[in-house]
Amino acid sequence: MKVSGAVFLPRGFKFSSATAGIKSSGRPDVGLILAAPPAAAAAVFTKNLVVAAPVQVGRASLAKSRGRVGAVIVNSGNANCATGAAGIRNCKTVCAETARLLGIRAPEVFPSSTGIIGVPLPVEPLLAELQSLIATAGASPDDLGRFSEAILTTDSKPKLASVPLRSGRGAITGVAKGAGMIHPQLATMLVYLLTDVRATPAALQTALRKACDDSFNVISIDGDTSTNDTVLLLASGASGIRYESVRKEFDGALLEVCRRLAEQIVTDGEGVEHVVRLEIAQAKNRLEALQVARTIAHSLLVKTAWAGADPNWGRILAAVGRSGVSADPKKVSIKIGDQTVCRGGVACPFDRKAAHQELSKPESRVSVKLGRGKATLDFLTSDLTTEYVRINAEYST
Amino acid sequence: MKVSGAVFLPRGFKFSSATAGIKSSGRPDVGLILAAPPAAAAAVFTKNLVVAAPVQVGRASLAKSRGRVGAVIVNSGNANCATGAAGIRNCKTVCAETARLLGIRAPEVFPSSTGIIGVPLPVEPLLAELQSLIATAGASPDDLGRFSEAILTTDSKPKLASVPLRSGRGAITGVAKGAGMIHPQLATMLVYLLTDVRATPAALQTALRKACDDSFNVISIDGDTSTNDTVLLLASGASGIRYESVRKEFDGALLEVCRRLAEQIVTDGEGVEHVVRLEIAQAKNRLEALQVARTIAHSLLVKTAWAGADPNWGRILAAVGRSGVSADPKKVSIKIGDQTVCRGGVACPFDRKAAHQELSKPESRVSVKLGRGKATLDFLTSDLTTEYVRINAEYST
Repeated sequence: MKVSGAVFLPRGFKFSSATAGIKSSGRPDVGLILAAPPAAAAAVFTKNLVVAAPVQVGRASLAKSRGRVGAVIVNSGNANCATGAAGIRNCKTVCAETARLLGIRAPEVFPSSTGIIGVPLPVEPLLAELQSLIATAGASPDDLGRFSEAILTTDSKPKLASVPLRSGRGAITGVAKGAGMIHPQLATMLVYLLTDVRATPAALQTALRKACDDSFNVISIDGDTSTNDTVLLLASGASGIRYESVRKEFDGALLEVCRRLAEQIVTDGEGVEHVVRLEIAQAKNRLEALQVARTIAHSLLVKTAWAGADPNWGRILAAVGRSGVSADPKKVSIKIGDQTVCRGGVACPFDRKAAHQELSKPESRVSVKLGRGKATLDFLTSDLTTEYVRINAEYST
Repeated sequence: MKVSGAVFLPRGFKFSSATAGIKSSGRPDVGLILAAPPAAAAAVFTKNLVVAAPVQVGRASLAKSRGRVGAVIVNSGNANCATGAAGIRNCKTVCAETARLLGIRAPEVFPSSTGIIGVPLPVEPLLAELQSLIATAGASPDDLGRFSEAILTTDSKPKLASVPLRSGRGAITGVAKGAGMIHPQLATMLVYLLTDVRATPAALQTALRKACDDSFNVISIDGDTSTNDTVLLLASGASGIRYESVRKEFDGALLEVCRRLAEQIVTDGEGVEHVVRLEIAQAKNRLEALQVARTIAHSLLVKTAWAGADPNWGRILAAVGRSGVSADPKKVSIKIGDQTVCRGGVACPFDRKAAHQELSKPESRVSVKLGRGKATLDFLTSDLTTEYVRINAEYST
């Protein structure tokens, strides 16, 4: 993949990709990020109780290495989940061999996997690619581009976002894969965030958690939470800039990168034709705003109406009513674009054609006022199309 | 509709239907049940906070009449929901006029509506049909059949179930409509249960709640809860049999009728091609079994896999993991039909073709053992097909 547009590559990282034959399509399915010397690292993982081997190993490795990562090894096409003790062994073998070849410690290799659940990871083909992955790693935008392609599954395109720090001397760049199973609490979503700022793992962890809350945790495609989701933030320190000296700017840039990746993930969701920006207003607090947003965003009836650009707001009102938030229907108002379609829980006359046109846009706006307080939330979600069903009814067979 | 098979019609009820032009299709859209003298009544309603006018009026009427119902007036094609004070007025007008024509009190008329939300109920056309509805009401199975057709929306066929009391002198008959938006806590589901046993409203209420818990509350099509759902149980007393003398038999027969209707509702769900009987075992209690069942039954990835008869059990395991129940993945086992496909949270070798064949059946069986306790639950749900999306993307436009 040729990377077009401005990519501000943080110094201290190299990238490569390979084809190990894990994907039956024959497309690249292994990606490597090298950080020499090892970078400071922070990560957030899926909240699903069923967690894949690489998530278990990665979490433990970060603890053992005290937040240091010298290499990230990712395979797509196989989740290495529900694979038992053998799955853990396989994952550790890949990490250990990568570490041996690089001359670093095994816990400094961070693993990720994405793909089908319950199928043993083909280790030998993966091991066979390690040497050439290391040998061919490069620091150009195109190298990053190749990595971004190797981690995809049903994604239709790679997802990249890059923001320079205004000081001009540092940058944050993110690479992601998403597609189906996207849910606020992370879902078959792998995100790698790289910066050349110098920071401690603890500072990175705080910054990362905050950025995720306002980006990956306020998007949803299908409500399913994956067993493998991982957001990893690596700081090489190669720019020499200390995090503490650019903290506010860094946090803002990190959020911006995360938001852009989150948007790309929703836009490229399986079968997605319409992205909807849900604005929840007048909630008592953020948590209940999130609860209402998620109930709307996961309602099959709402999502299918959006697929038809159908301004059937009654389904949205019904979703609010069953969200578990004690909203008084008499105080609920709903807007499609700039038009109020329901005021005080009651239908009001509106231009159906204009509402249909708004919902026909690639990205439309739906606002719900709860009449309970002052908290607001922006939530990004999508429609549910026959194409989503087709993709997911055919995935493993 | 000709009613075929044995229908045991409880004495004391008459039925009719009419076409008021509420449905644009021109199909019958008003149904009437007469109980003369007024029957003892009990009802359960939707748990959605957004409730339609007829649910508000019906609930209040039952309280005012102390559980007496002389007539049930149902319209399909319009939910009379989110219609504000005018919606309540319209509903009361229809009830009052029906009562006047029958010479009973207005609170003895029980209203139901089902259809689109947020559109004013066309009252005049409805009122215009009342006289002929009353005049043509009859007590034959075919009259019941006509009523059962008039209450349908996207249903493909009427739903009836009938069980005689073994004593042979009484019966319970149920009529239902369902289709989309079916959810355990009731959802655009209207159910009328009729018996000629003699019972107090309080006894009926207890019996009804119990029967609903093990039937309508353990089914799901799309997880959306409707604003209009109602299950009404009427006891005419015309058989002379006292409820107390046949209590156990009655409760069993009532559950049987409810279960058969619930099955028909799922089988006839919008776009449903495969019904799946989910057996949750080894839960700590019924509540957590229900929570796991619902999470699986509402997972888009699970439901689309079922549409393709795809034995992709990893999606089921992932749903268990995010259900909120602290199940230890290492203790979770999954069966498709009689084959174990996942044991102790880990893949085990299985005959994929046989599993595919099991899931290809009109009704298949999926069992999940949680390894936490002794509670079990049977839950009936369905796949999610492109046809469901097509139906619901086109509903109001």
